[in-house]
Amino acid sequence: MALRKIILPEKDIPKKWYNIAPDLPRPLDPPLNPETKEPIGPDALAPIFPMGLIEQEVSTERWIDIPEEVLDVLMLWRPSPLCRALNLEKALETPAKIYYKYEGVSPPGSHKPNTAVAQAYYNKKEGVKRIATETGAGQWGSALSFACNLFDIECMVYMVKVSFEQKPYRKSMIETWGGKVVPSPTNLTNAGRAVLKEHPDSTGSLGIAISEAIEDAVGREDTKYALGSVLNHVVTHQSIIGEECLKQFALIGDYPDIVVGCHGGGSNFAGLSFPFAREKMVDGKNIKLLAIEPESCATLTTGDYEYDHGDIAGYTPLLMMYTLGRDFVPPPIHAGGLRYHGAAPLVSLLVKEGVIEVDSCNQLEVFQTAVMFARAEGLIPAPESAHAILGAVREALKCKETGESKSILIGLSGHGHFDMGAYDAYLSGEMG
Amino acid sequence: MALRKIILPEKDIPKKWYNIAPDLPRPLDPPLNPETKEPIGPDALAPIFPMGLIEQEVSTERWIDIPEEVLDVLMLWRPSPLCRALNLEKALETPAKIYYKYEGVSPPGSHKPNTAVAQAYYNKKEGVKRIATETGAGQWGSALSFACNLFDIECMVYMVKVSFEQKPYRKSMIETWGGKVVPSPTNLTNAGRAVLKEHPDSTGSLGIAISEAIEDAVGREDTKYALGSVLNHVVTHQSIIGEECLKQFALIGDYPDIVVGCHGGGSNFAGLSFPFAREKMVDGKNIKLLAIEPESCATLTTGDYEYDHGDIAGYTPLLMMYTLGRDFVPPPIHAGGLRYHGAAPLVSLLVKEGVIEVDSCNQLEVFQTAVMFARAEGLIPAPESAHAILGAVREALKCKETGESKSILIGLSGHGHFDMGAYDAYLSGEMG
Repeated sequence: MALRKIILPEKDIPKKWYNIAPDLPRPLDPPLNPETKEPIGPDALAPIFPMGLIEQEVSTERWIDIPEEVLDVLMLWRPSPLCRALNLEKALETPAKIYYKYEGVSPPGSHKPNTAVAQAYYNKKEGVKRIATETGAGQWGSALSFACNLFDIECMVYMVKVSFEQKPYRKSMIETWGGKVVPSPTNLTNAGRAVLKEHPDSTGSLGIAISEAIEDAVGREDTKYALGSVLNHVVTHQSIIGEECLKQFALIGDYPDIVVGCHGGGSNFAGLSFPFAREKMVDGKNIKLLAIEPESCATLTTGDYEYDHGDIAGYTPLLMMYTLGRDFVPPPIHAGGLRYHGAAPLVSLLVKEGVIEVDSCNQLEVFQTAVMFARAEGLIPAPESAHAILGAVREALKCKETGESKSILIGLSGHGHFDMGAYDAYLSGEMG
Repeated sequence: MALRKIILPEKDIPKKWYNIAPDLPRPLDPPLNPETKEPIGPDALAPIFPMGLIEQEVSTERWIDIPEEVLDVLMLWRPSPLCRALNLEKALETPAKIYYKYEGVSPPGSHKPNTAVAQAYYNKKEGVKRIATETGAGQWGSALSFACNLFDIECMVYMVKVSFEQKPYRKSMIETWGGKVVPSPTNLTNAGRAVLKEHPDSTGSLGIAISEAIEDAVGREDTKYALGSVLNHVVTHQSIIGEECLKQFALIGDYPDIVVGCHGGGSNFAGLSFPFAREKMVDGKNIKLLAIEPESCATLTTGDYEYDHGDIAGYTPLLMMYTLGRDFVPPPIHAGGLRYHGAAPLVSLLVKEGVIEVDSCNQLEVFQTAVMFARAEGLIPAPESAHAILGAVREALKCKETGESKSILIGLSGHGHFDMGAYDAYLSGEMG
């Protein structure tokens, strides 16, 4: 009887977040004021974020204590399991050992609540009554609604319209936890109205929805804004994923040769890979860190490394990152969580410096892989996560060629229970 | 930091199923031939079940070895977690300790694969190429599709029409694992055609779908039939739930005073409670075993204890059980898995003998409880499982009155990710 799950005892849950800032090969370029093009200080972010998060955003401390109240909520589902994909290995006839870190066990079904809970906590601590946010596929919106409910904060979600329509039950999920959700672009904000004026049929984008949520937050005294990816503090909160993996690999005496995650805004990829990036940069571990993105929104593989806004209206500071241009509207692929024009500055810098490798793939091969994985391992992955599986399959097939028994770690960021319409489209041959 | 999850190590997974037959207060009344009204022998079941399962159906051995090949698949998600519902306790301000055994971690999201995997295995072993079955809410159909895929068997699912329409993504899930699914009643069988002739708008029922699936199996050489509940072997396969619970309570030095599960056909309830029923009957443990069912299909609380068929067409043997009559068509409540006119003969006997207590509740209070649970514990329960939560809440509130700190165990049989339409109906006030 082969063991399949490496379970970290609850008491061994990481008690600190890992902040990669002090371990970077060079410091991050500072965010710039969009008007003056001068570096902005923490105060510039105060209208939209609570100070507790701003401090983390600019922190250069390697380790940040996770508050007890946050841990207490995370432990509703954490530590998340690390699983050996024995059936997938067999199906591929590969000598590689394939593991997946499964974040779909959280109530909203993805890695997103790792930061949503932390963000809700710091907002609550500073008396914030209401949080506005955007969501793509709905993973982030439902995670924030889940977290806000536990800290008794109102939650307002601007959901990218194409996902709102593709995934109606994400809306029900957000509402079950007490949040409010509207399809973006809306008529509720200047940013939304401007898009609708020019493109009445706009299917929306994360860039548009971010503009709407920021405008909402800035316009109300009781409201702050929350971002589900890209920013440093978000990435730091997600580090618990990779820190758990390190402990789990230690339990079984293995260590990954390759760590592969999907990349949209970067928080899932960074959360999984940054603890390994530390061991690569600081301890000289020989490890390949691989980010996979959709060809149709290939920010890291085809974008420019330059200052750009995080949103379409230009409300956010200018961030140094890989970008396709802030007005880029990706095609409505089913992996809605990967439809973002930019990338986390921290991930971008490590890609630029060669610490992280990148690759892309098309939607059809993603779903071929997703169905293969579902039939082998049982679990139906989110389309976003299936990008990472595909990256791992490619590596495992290389091992089959070379006969190498590499250990490959997949970041399985969420389940696909709210993406079955996309599976339907694939299985019925309607996917291009 | 309060611990929330009691995790049983993989190596401690139960290696034997518990068969309650030898521990019953009196033997089961035998199934009868519908024509002759004489007891039937194992041979009568051979056209529809493989012999390995028929042997289990009539076995009086207390312990049955779980084959290695079955354990190997179960360990994709088992042992399942036993969780302490600390937030729910707090929300109810009860001194009771509330635990839930969570079966939603299986790939199909419910307890059903515990028996689906075993049934697929025994069919495969005897060379069966194709299995036909029925499904209500879709939990069983998706579980059997999942299991058949892993053992390379074709799977044909007759899905009760009202659920097929309420839960379209269950269909996609069945198809993702390679199964075929049709809304029942269909025009493919005599049983289906007979219903459609009389009620062209029939929303279907489990009784109808069972007739269709049996007719399909009997009519094809390569095909057997599989039932997801009611029968002894199914109930026995589910005993792994309660056996794991016993080990998990032992790990923390607690023991439940009350075990509460929802009841449809009986397999979930029996799987959870029979190991505790053994300790109640054999070891004299003082424990309340409580089955909760919907008022609109209150088989145990309002049905008659008598011989009846398991299906509408009368294809099955006559079983001694609580029944609302084989032609009873329950209203289309959202807890589709509880819409069954009969009850497992094993559960029925223990209810009749006073070992198990029963209660019922209406749909509105079920969803009130489901949303309260989701907001407290995060996890969104299946409507079926919410019946059990409601039963536990009632008991916890009694404890609040009396000041007793009882331990209450909920059988949380599945998640509600495919039931969000029902949550939508509740949250928008459209539920009667």
